[in-house]
Amino acid sequence: MKGEEREAMAVIRDKGEMRSWSRSRRKTGARVALVPTMGFLHRGHLALVEDAKRRAEFVVVSVYVNPGQFAPSEDLESYPSDLAGDLRKLDELAVDAVFCPPDLYDYGGYGGVSARREVMAMSCLEDRGRGGAVHETWIRVERLEEGLCGKSRPIFFRGVATVVAKLFNVVEPDVAVFGKKDYQQWRIIRRMVRDLEFDIDIIGAEVVREADGLAMSSRNVLLSPTERQQALSISESLSKAKVAAQNGVISCKGLQASVVELITQAGGRVDYAEIVDQEDLRVVEEIKAPVVFCVAAWFGKVRLIDNIEINP
Amino acid sequence: MKGEEREAMAVIRDKGEMRSWSRSRRKTGARVALVPTMGFLHRGHLALVEDAKRRAEFVVVSVYVNPGQFAPSEDLESYPSDLAGDLRKLDELAVDAVFCPPDLYDYGGYGGVSARREVMAMSCLEDRGRGGAVHETWIRVERLEEGLCGKSRPIFFRGVATVVAKLFNVVEPDVAVFGKKDYQQWRIIRRMVRDLEFDIDIIGAEVVREADGLAMSSRNVLLSPTERQQALSISESLSKAKVAAQNGVISCKGLQASVVELITQAGGRVDYAEIVDQEDLRVVEEIKAPVVFCVAAWFGKVRLIDNIEINP
Repeated sequence: MKGEEREAMAVIRDKGEMRSWSRSRRKTGARVALVPTMGFLHRGHLALVEDAKRRAEFVVVSVYVNPGQFAPSEDLESYPSDLAGDLRKLDELAVDAVFCPPDLYDYGGYGGVSARREVMAMSCLEDRGRGGAVHETWIRVERLEEGLCGKSRPIFFRGVATVVAKLFNVVEPDVAVFGKKDYQQWRIIRRMVRDLEFDIDIIGAEVVREADGLAMSSRNVLLSPTERQQALSISESLSKAKVAAQNGVISCKGLQASVVELITQAGGRVDYAEIVDQEDLRVVEEIKAPVVFCVAAWFGKVRLIDNIEINP
Repeated sequence: MKGEEREAMAVIRDKGEMRSWSRSRRKTGARVALVPTMGFLHRGHLALVEDAKRRAEFVVVSVYVNPGQFAPSEDLESYPSDLAGDLRKLDELAVDAVFCPPDLYDYGGYGGVSARREVMAMSCLEDRGRGGAVHETWIRVERLEEGLCGKSRPIFFRGVATVVAKLFNVVEPDVAVFGKKDYQQWRIIRRMVRDLEFDIDIIGAEVVREADGLAMSSRNVLLSPTERQQALSISESLSKAKVAAQNGVISCKGLQASVVELITQAGGRVDYAEIVDQEDLRVVEEIKAPVVFCVAAWFGKVRLIDNIEINP
């Protein structure tokens, strides 16, 4: 608590309590903003919080590592966390409530069966094969989820869209702020909100970077010093591509080849480097309309993503 | 309008207006109930409305034939409608508002691309290939949607769950009433509401039947007099099966064979006749716990469904 004028930051673990908290504020006509996070907060997250504070009287930050968006082969177990540190940072920013549920998929009661099936993909949630009532409802944003990260992480956006819908229905915010570093995620959430008629403004906040250009990510701490240095090749190559495009290079093939080359030379392994339409994320061959250049690359065991908007 | 004490029934076509109408009522602490329908209302629907009236101060009935749940090969074009008649019936029941949007998938503005893709199934919505911004967000209740009607109508419950979520987000009701005649639909909606954290009570209302036992359905008017007579075999065979089960016949195989035989002899073509757990809709081989015997059968070009709960 920073000043006596402010109520202590609420730390809420229960869904029902979270909804009541939000409703009681909105009832008075105040607006509630939600910033969904997976915790281990860095300056990128805190910028989202600052943005949210400008848009609503009350700001809720959710901290929840969502098993539904990790494949069993991915890094759910090693995903970094520091709830105590997160709460301290959020309190310093005078956030009104932190929603940190222990398990968003625990429905108790009825002992259901596993939702495993052949034809649909599986996340860590289903892989756990828990005895309780199993979650089986998934939201698919069919076209937008296909490209970019969707190719190598086929169940990722299914999990993201679903947990965000859950958070929306628990917190019932007026506005929610997402980082444009996760560009595809931001577009998918916007589309989901439109298609399912959620009455929530979805804000995309600009990418926040370290002084040397590396996009902020909770996964950055997992990089060795060498990998940390190598990873700079992503932002550097993207910046160069943007300059080239602004100087008249509109053919994507060459721009992509340069980015792949620079990252590979630095020691990274490119997952994808694609130039897509900003709105519908379709791959373009020439830069004639606003595009975003999206990259995912591995440095050791860490997969990083970054992007840069190019407005010709 | 039946009496001067009541406001005239609102007939609302616009999403925003519907949400405002509902919010202004709920703000006072009153409860709003939603009865989603596809129109061409019969006594089955009206029983849902009566149920809703007992549960909330305000009742909204939606009338919308959802293209997202019909496959291109199905009967979207011939689905019966009579909005004027529906409005008259609802006004007589003193319903507070009727929501009859012209198009729940019209987002205007941005000219998107078709959501057609190879790997996912297609509904009439995508088949229309409309030029506008195309809906691409779909809710899947993966396990419950698989069996029964899901086998012969693979995109049906995807469309139902999605449009119901849309209606929930537009009307924002406290309670919604569904008919147990569409048993699988009712279970799917309940599961979706739990899994996505909608704060809405989902009520299942009992099947309403004609005097001779035929379950009420908007499609019944499409039956010829002969088919209408043949169709009685569904409810009759289900009743017999229930009596047999209550008399100690717990093996499902024989019960199913009898139902198939009676319907087939009457001139129907059975799509499925399955005995499943009431809660998770898994097929059972013996009736040891509460089950529901679900049947779908064709009479001419009309596909009818019915079911009967059996509690041993």
